Amino acid sequence: MPTKVRIALDAMGGDHGPSVVIPGAALSLQRHPDAEFIIVGDRARIEPLLAGYPELRKASRIAHTDVAIRMDDKPSQALRYGRWKSSMWLAIDAVKRNEADVAVSAGNTGALMAMAKFHLKTMARIERPAIAAIWPTLRGESVVLDLGASIGADTQHLIDMAVMGGAMARILLHIDRPTVGLLNIGVEEVKGLDEVRAAGQWLREHALPHLEYVGFVEGDDIGKGTVDVVVTEGFAGNIALKTAEGTARQIGGYLKAAMSRSLLARIGYLFARGAFRALAEKVDPRRSNGGVFLGLNGVVIKSHGGTDGEGFAAAVDIGYEMVRYELLAKISQMLVHQNHDTAARPAAGAVS
Amino acid sequence: MPTKVRIALDAMGGDHGPSVVIPGAALSLQRHPDAEFIIVGDRARIEPLLAGYPELRKASRIAHTDVAIRMDDKPSQALRYGRWKSSMWLAIDAVKRNEADVAVSAGNTGALMAMAKFHLKTMARIERPAIAAIWPTLRGESVVLDLGASIGADTQHLIDMAVMGGAMARILLHIDRPTVGLLNIGVEEVKGLDEVRAAGQWLREHALPHLEYVGFVEGDDIGKGTVDVVVTEGFAGNIALKTAEGTARQIGGYLKAAMSRSLLARIGYLFARGAFRALAEKVDPRRSNGGVFLGLNGVVIKSHGGTDGEGFAAAVDIGYEMVRYELLAKISQMLVHQNHDTAARPAAGAVS
Repeated sequence: MPTKVRIALDAMGGDHGPSVVIPGAALSLQRHPDAEFIIVGDRARIEPLLAGYPELRKASRIAHTDVAIRMDDKPSQALRYGRWKSSMWLAIDAVKRNEADVAVSAGNTGALMAMAKFHLKTMARIERPAIAAIWPTLRGESVVLDLGASIGADTQHLIDMAVMGGAMARILLHIDRPTVGLLNIGVEEVKGLDEVRAAGQWLREHALPHLEYVGFVEGDDIGKGTVDVVVTEGFAGNIALKTAEGTARQIGGYLKAAMSRSLLARIGYLFARGAFRALAEKVDPRRSNGGVFLGLNGVVIKSHGGTDGEGFAAAVDIGYEMVRYELLAKISQMLVHQNHDTAARPAAGAVS
Repeated sequence: MPTKVRIALDAMGGDHGPSVVIPGAALSLQRHPDAEFIIVGDRARIEPLLAGYPELRKASRIAHTDVAIRMDDKPSQALRYGRWKSSMWLAIDAVKRNEADVAVSAGNTGALMAMAKFHLKTMARIERPAIAAIWPTLRGESVVLDLGASIGADTQHLIDMAVMGGAMARILLHIDRPTVGLLNIGVEEVKGLDEVRAAGQWLREHALPHLEYVGFVEGDDIGKGTVDVVVTEGFAGNIALKTAEGTARQIGGYLKAAMSRSLLARIGYLFARGAFRALAEKVDPRRSNGGVFLGLNGVVIKSHGGTDGEGFAAAVDIGYEMVRYELLAKISQMLVHQNHDTAARPAAGAVS
């Protein structure tokens, strides 16, 4: 591991580009003075902003490019015009050429995943990458994956995700053997769940050294924090995440309406202002911003496109930690364990 | 339509059996004096409870049986020992024999669906039934389906669900042309979404008279109330529902902790008590209790197993409304429209 953590930033990604990326990086640098940055994008827009953050300026170099990936392009389009030259590609390329340890982008998720997969390739023995999120829970934080990269994941991929999510949770939660659950539904139904059942059986039978498989969990277990790692295929995972975000906003809306409906409520609000502030911080989506791409030969972090400097800093922080505590080495180590007994690995999609 | 709405109750279903079912039915009867009940279950347990509710007693008859379906049995087990004689079966059987218009049970979901499907059969042209829920939103209420009956729904089933959910929303929301969205994810990915795309294309091309298809929606659109009806296959739908419930409880937990963390917060809480009560009512899961089984030759309502009398009454209310406003006729009417141009119906799972 290098002494410095080298972070490549796609400065042009997201809804706000450098005006969010630069302040975000500056904030993260305050928390991690041993980070250094390659800021990829339009020099004419980056330099004036950088002038306001002398510490960041000292710890950075700019890699200029005119090409930026648009937020609503399809991955295939983005690859066509953005390969070799866009800020997104060049941030990933810095990881590929070992000039950076991690790339962070607030750009188009589909394009970022397509480029990362194309350029970095998946790790040996991993068929498909996954996107993992940090999910705030009643107990603290959990890792939830996949959020959309692996629609209709098969048995092997669910097992791989348990391993990769476990490695991420070890770093995030500082525990050696995080608990892992497979997301399932309570309704009894034979059809369609064979992959989940088979993955569960395999994980139970092959007790892996760095994770503790505890069985199936349901949607409401995510918020409870029943397990440290929740594994599901990408369609359901993405919908779960977005639904939870929507529910949080919805209850926030109800709360706001309730606290302004009468004079007494407004007085109560004034007294309890500190408590409301603490609550708002607790459910602040910026605090858990940063999706981690797992299963690639390199670390790539996706920030929300609409976030602000605070939120982007959280994504940079995650990238920093994943490098500092050696995510890739931890995954590889587990894959070796998992593959000791190769014959025991189920065929893709097999039901045992 | 009968002048009375005839409701068959599985008195033994749920975690609490008749001690919740009887008070719940009594509450619903107050709101719908033109309801009458067949209460199926153990007479020795039902009669003493019924003595406390003279109005309900007058509007009911008891159908005695000793057999009750256990909450954790598999559907196949339940069918084996509970067919012909369990309280769950006999409530459904009353609908089948046209002695009741709707059956309501708080019992085991899988068993209830298996028995309802086996005994009532699916409507002509409907391959698989679905379970729909009423979802409170920032705009009011929406219908979300399916919650677990149709894992891996194909194109045709997604279209059928749009129609059936549309019929339910017409009753629930008292509008003639509810808006319908297909749940999808924002991440661009070719694999696994062919069914959703094909269903969307079909719905767009075949403008149906009683619903307005507006396109894809994402998980956070559910809580916003972007559309009146959200359609998805059962695995993702069940996980979305449970995740939202978990998130609501999680934020409730945060809020409680925040309001008791300091003296000022506790004082504020006292002032704003009325507002907090209004908020609690707003997010009370009992208010939207009652899953509607759609696509069967008969109306069956599933109540949460752990609910109380208030919650069970909400499920009975839904059953009442679905009968009073002719759910089955509304679905049939739409299916006729949908089938006018039979050649245009996509083959199961086909991608157009």
